[in-house]
Amino acid sequence: MVRAALQPRIELRAMKRLVPLLSAIVVGCASAPPEPARDARPLAEILEASSPAEWRKPDPENTFYLDLATGRVVIELAPAFAPRNVESIKRLVRQKYFDGLSVYRVQDNFVAQWGDPDEKKDLGGAPKKVAPEFSRTIDGGLEFVALPDRDAYAPETGFSHGFPAARDSGAGRAWLTHCYGTLGVGRDNDEDSGNGAELYVVIGNAPRILDRNITVAGRVIRGIELLSALPRGTGNLGYYEKPEQRTPIRQARMAADLPQSERTPLEILRTDSPTFRALVDGRRFRKDQWYKVPAGAVDVCALTVPVRAPK
Amino acid sequence: MVRAALQPRIELRAMKRLVPLLSAIVVGCASAPPEPARDARPLAEILEASSPAEWRKPDPENTFYLDLATGRVVIELAPAFAPRNVESIKRLVRQKYFDGLSVYRVQDNFVAQWGDPDEKKDLGGAPKKVAPEFSRTIDGGLEFVALPDRDAYAPETGFSHGFPAARDSGAGRAWLTHCYGTLGVGRDNDEDSGNGAELYVVIGNAPRILDRNITVAGRVIRGIELLSALPRGTGNLGYYEKPEQRTPIRQARMAADLPQSERTPLEILRTDSPTFRALVDGRRFRKDQWYKVPAGAVDVCALTVPVRAPK
Repeated sequence: MVRAALQPRIELRAMKRLVPLLSAIVVGCASAPPEPARDARPLAEILEASSPAEWRKPDPENTFYLDLATGRVVIELAPAFAPRNVESIKRLVRQKYFDGLSVYRVQDNFVAQWGDPDEKKDLGGAPKKVAPEFSRTIDGGLEFVALPDRDAYAPETGFSHGFPAARDSGAGRAWLTHCYGTLGVGRDNDEDSGNGAELYVVIGNAPRILDRNITVAGRVIRGIELLSALPRGTGNLGYYEKPEQRTPIRQARMAADLPQSERTPLEILRTDSPTFRALVDGRRFRKDQWYKVPAGAVDVCALTVPVRAPK
Repeated sequence: MVRAALQPRIELRAMKRLVPLLSAIVVGCASAPPEPARDARPLAEILEASSPAEWRKPDPENTFYLDLATGRVVIELAPAFAPRNVESIKRLVRQKYFDGLSVYRVQDNFVAQWGDPDEKKDLGGAPKKVAPEFSRTIDGGLEFVALPDRDAYAPETGFSHGFPAARDSGAGRAWLTHCYGTLGVGRDNDEDSGNGAELYVVIGNAPRILDRNITVAGRVIRGIELLSALPRGTGNLGYYEKPEQRTPIRQARMAADLPQSERTPLEILRTDSPTFRALVDGRRFRKDQWYKVPAGAVDVCALTVPVRAPK
């Protein structure tokens, strides 16, 4: 649980010192100098002090499991940003479309991708094309918790509905950003050529160049290491050269369709909670026994939203 | 070779379309609107058209090999930024200190780390402490090829001596940035507690929070997938729980100490070359059959310096 919590990182050397996740937490603001008053609580302690109301359970109707021989990847879908693509993915999952297909592409520092590499499996009536949802309007007051720091790619970044996101108020648009763990809908050259039958997850440095060019439909909330540690494909773009190198998908299921006993119960820290805000500032102004110079800023893709098993 | 070249990324879906790395290249500037005149050459073609003088061979006196059962990781050291730590690493390599030790920590979306987890192996007279080299002065005109876009963490980013770097002209300092593939010198809480005996490589989203907090001594120029695809440690912070889970290091050697036949010949595109500049702009303004909206910017850690086998 602590593992996923903004990835508390301590000294890189000692095995002995596994305890002192001692990061100083600072309630600062964007323009503050890098030495504001400090809250001495370690990140883990901040999390411990969170209230139950600050955690949410992902909706089982919008959570799906990708079950591999090595374990389960849990993915939360983002209907607030990609309603049509999410609907198509859910339809395919419910048709058991992915069962027996494979992870057929793993490109280092980029993506792991799954589906039917031959694109021959019957879609069972699911649409071949789905309207692109590369960004959405912010009309009607899209929930958005802004981060205070500069970003190379967007006027503003932050979190929306719990997902890393960007916003351009001038253009009236918002979109989900490509960060580690982001789930996207593969497509061909035509904008509407994706339908959720080929999906990818980011397993490297945030490929923000993809933002607004492809539909982001969710993110991995548990088990990404089952994808990120897969052998890299040695073919062009990380495709496996031999079919037997692919990783079979045992089954993909909507959480809602499994009995309670087969679900993976998880809670996610709300990104509009005081505890999340404290964690963000803890990252921005982290200074403790190990950290000597606070970064003074944090990138939206350098933050990991804490996920835990329910207490 | 093309594989490493700024990672040309095309459509995420089709296996059929492996050819069209068709990215439009634009010679633009920071303030330009995202639709300037376009150079229609694909990235691969830009690389092909580079002149031999735009490529450099890494100095064998500052290149070392980490040989695993699965292959060779090639690392270029950065004496311009960490002369004392590089000297210590070279001394340890030449003493065969790393031979028979292991990669004992792999934390997902963070680092792979190697050395002696018990810190018991004889250092053979090598210093236990080396003065920290977290940043350096820019006095005397440090070579620096600046990127034009904003960065969350530093006033300016770019490349220096071929490495991703940041610069604060006001403070008169520069430092190497923590990007995918960056090599760092593990340390305890004391700034001088690292000596190169424990080294780590970044295998996840750029952990820029480490910048200026630890000595960066180089970067992986080939074979990072041998580290990034290792099974993740299930202990705290990615340490393996059982010694047998560790990946043994067969040997570490300076390139200069091996006969020519045992070296891995490589060339690296100069980051102060016109071709590299064209590739940077190609990333920033990429718009082609697949990319619909140019990012308009690029982050220093989203760029990969092309590496190739000599022709």
